[in-house]
Amino acid sequence: MDMPASKLMRFGPENPLRLDEGTELAPWQIAYETYGELNADKTNAILVCHALTGDQYVASENPVTGKPGWWSMMVGPGQPVDTDKYFVICANVLGGCLGTTGPACTNPETDEVYGLDLPVVTIGDMVRSQAKLVEALGIETLFAVVGGSMGGMQVLQWASAYPEKVFAAVPIATGPRHSSQNIAFHEVGRQAVMADPDWCHGQYAKEGKRPLKGLSVARMAAHITYMSDESLHNKFGRNLQDRSAITFGFDADFQIESYLRHQGMTFVDRFDANSYLYVTRAMDYFDLAAAHGGKLANAFLHSDTRFCVMSFTTDWLFPTSESKDIVRALNAAGANVSFVEIESSRGHDAFLLDEPELFKTMRGFLTGAAKARGIPAPSNGD
Amino acid sequence: MDMPASKLMRFGPENPLRLDEGTELAPWQIAYETYGELNADKTNAILVCHALTGDQYVASENPVTGKPGWWSMMVGPGQPVDTDKYFVICANVLGGCLGTTGPACTNPETDEVYGLDLPVVTIGDMVRSQAKLVEALGIETLFAVVGGSMGGMQVLQWASAYPEKVFAAVPIATGPRHSSQNIAFHEVGRQAVMADPDWCHGQYAKEGKRPLKGLSVARMAAHITYMSDESLHNKFGRNLQDRSAITFGFDADFQIESYLRHQGMTFVDRFDANSYLYVTRAMDYFDLAAAHGGKLANAFLHSDTRFCVMSFTTDWLFPTSESKDIVRALNAAGANVSFVEIESSRGHDAFLLDEPELFKTMRGFLTGAAKARGIPAPSNGD
Repeated sequence: MDMPASKLMRFGPENPLRLDEGTELAPWQIAYETYGELNADKTNAILVCHALTGDQYVASENPVTGKPGWWSMMVGPGQPVDTDKYFVICANVLGGCLGTTGPACTNPETDEVYGLDLPVVTIGDMVRSQAKLVEALGIETLFAVVGGSMGGMQVLQWASAYPEKVFAAVPIATGPRHSSQNIAFHEVGRQAVMADPDWCHGQYAKEGKRPLKGLSVARMAAHITYMSDESLHNKFGRNLQDRSAITFGFDADFQIESYLRHQGMTFVDRFDANSYLYVTRAMDYFDLAAAHGGKLANAFLHSDTRFCVMSFTTDWLFPTSESKDIVRALNAAGANVSFVEIESSRGHDAFLLDEPELFKTMRGFLTGAAKARGIPAPSNGD
Repeated sequence: MDMPASKLMRFGPENPLRLDEGTELAPWQIAYETYGELNADKTNAILVCHALTGDQYVASENPVTGKPGWWSMMVGPGQPVDTDKYFVICANVLGGCLGTTGPACTNPETDEVYGLDLPVVTIGDMVRSQAKLVEALGIETLFAVVGGSMGGMQVLQWASAYPEKVFAAVPIATGPRHSSQNIAFHEVGRQAVMADPDWCHGQYAKEGKRPLKGLSVARMAAHITYMSDESLHNKFGRNLQDRSAITFGFDADFQIESYLRHQGMTFVDRFDANSYLYVTRAMDYFDLAAAHGGKLANAFLHSDTRFCVMSFTTDWLFPTSESKDIVRALNAAGANVSFVEIESSRGHDAFLLDEPELFKTMRGFLTGAAKARGIPAPSNGD
């Protein structure tokens, strides 16, 4: 896969990345995009953390797909995360496939593609790599860290590992740990990839192959979990695909089948199969309470960070109950927290869609936090 | 796959099976088991309809797996479906792989395995084949038709297509049609099978291969939908598999991963991949309202059948709302219907498990219906 031209921060052997696995990664690199201007006091930086298969192109065209930024309704001039006011950073995650060190990158020790030789990374490792980027950019404290789903896990990890560096935190549609059901769906996806003979035990790059069919099936299964039963019913129901009647065959008779096949086929054009294994594994391993003696509140003790937690009514991948677990722990830790459950029919994916209450809540929370932080509004008003 | 020794009813060219697809199937056969004795008036026959990957061994050892009958807690001497009192019939579904005509059988026209040359069958076709079996057994009216999930769809189809032949009907954990989300999960399973190069476009028998990996992934994905988030949490949570810590790898670290892999691996020993395509497709095509002018109540007009509809609180594959759709339609049609939503944490699979309220409801309903039908209790009391 060609690497797109992103901003790149390279870290040499003198600046290794410590990994939760116990080893160190060096050299390594992190690809990122920025939007807006860092102010003189360096107090207006917002880090946006992307989800499982997201990327650094949060508010600008993705050079691989040619599509607009994945959160351009949320991030941009005059948007809730207002790039006229804030300096926004978004980095490709460690283990990803859009420029940051991941399994599709060349292993400097062997001059061959890493494949499964890259150590398995965690949400903690991703956040540690982002902290090194933020430090390299000369920013001491982030005004805010925001993100949904796996991005929300990173937000929680940031607030727990670097409370002094996070003024405000917005974890959306996420949980303090990956549930058994979520691990189960990820495992199905990984097994689908690994069942593809073109996966070649992870060495497909060397063999000149790509496990496209397996990765496509993995994406199809995952995609169902991103939508609600209600949204699938509203969007597709049992509508037939360009036909007046069922065909008594195994082609895509129903629109939902055709839609899922399309999701699978387009995904493999933009994503690396081994990266899919790595990032799903990172989510599976996330368990913030377990990392703090089994008590989630311990993850947030003595925190001055302001939190705004959001969930969506029909999200069954990260149901509201898991956001409430976060809120309860933050309350128990004496943290400053607000919580909004947003009424939406669109399931987990709602955090990426046009959901007015999501935008309103984000804008309101950031505006209030910006006042407390003393960040001036842009000259054209707020 | 060796065919086990079941009772077999063969239908020759003079007795073809009309298929919804528009063609006729001949010769064809249906494999079945019976339990208990048919009484002199032939009024005590209960047809049990099995679910997607079930079989005719409802109350006796499955010769392929060596496991007890899949519903032996429900069906047997003294059980709720009491074989001391009722004559129980259970047949392998059309399109299945345990003796009834299915894609793994030999096509009499070519003397080769059918594969995808078998016409795609429907729930209506399955029920039509069962009606021919029941007729061949000399039974005019079934005392009851009972079944869960796809078995429940067959119950509804029986009650709709042959109301005069069904005295009582017990559809459990089912719906009047397959939802968009359910079709989506089935499509993922089919794509997983078809992505396996050993599937050979359905001709794997001819090639001496079997798409075991694809079928295994299909089963893993499906299995998640049979359990509730709560039951996965209670049974596995984030428990690790024989290890004190995560391994930073892609082996089965979590018990849920190991469990799912086991489910996938054991499934392929007992099920044919093409049959999986056929029976999932039959479920997808099921839409009882669409077959009756878009109004579900029309499926049950002028019915004297007594219905007992059951659902489970945590079943998200066939949620209670779908059972309520059935009940509303039956009420609108003026039918005799009782409805019980059973409190259970175990999701869709609850209908196969030790759920006392399920057994109590079944026993009570059948006992009442048997009195109305004039079926005597067994000599050792009821």
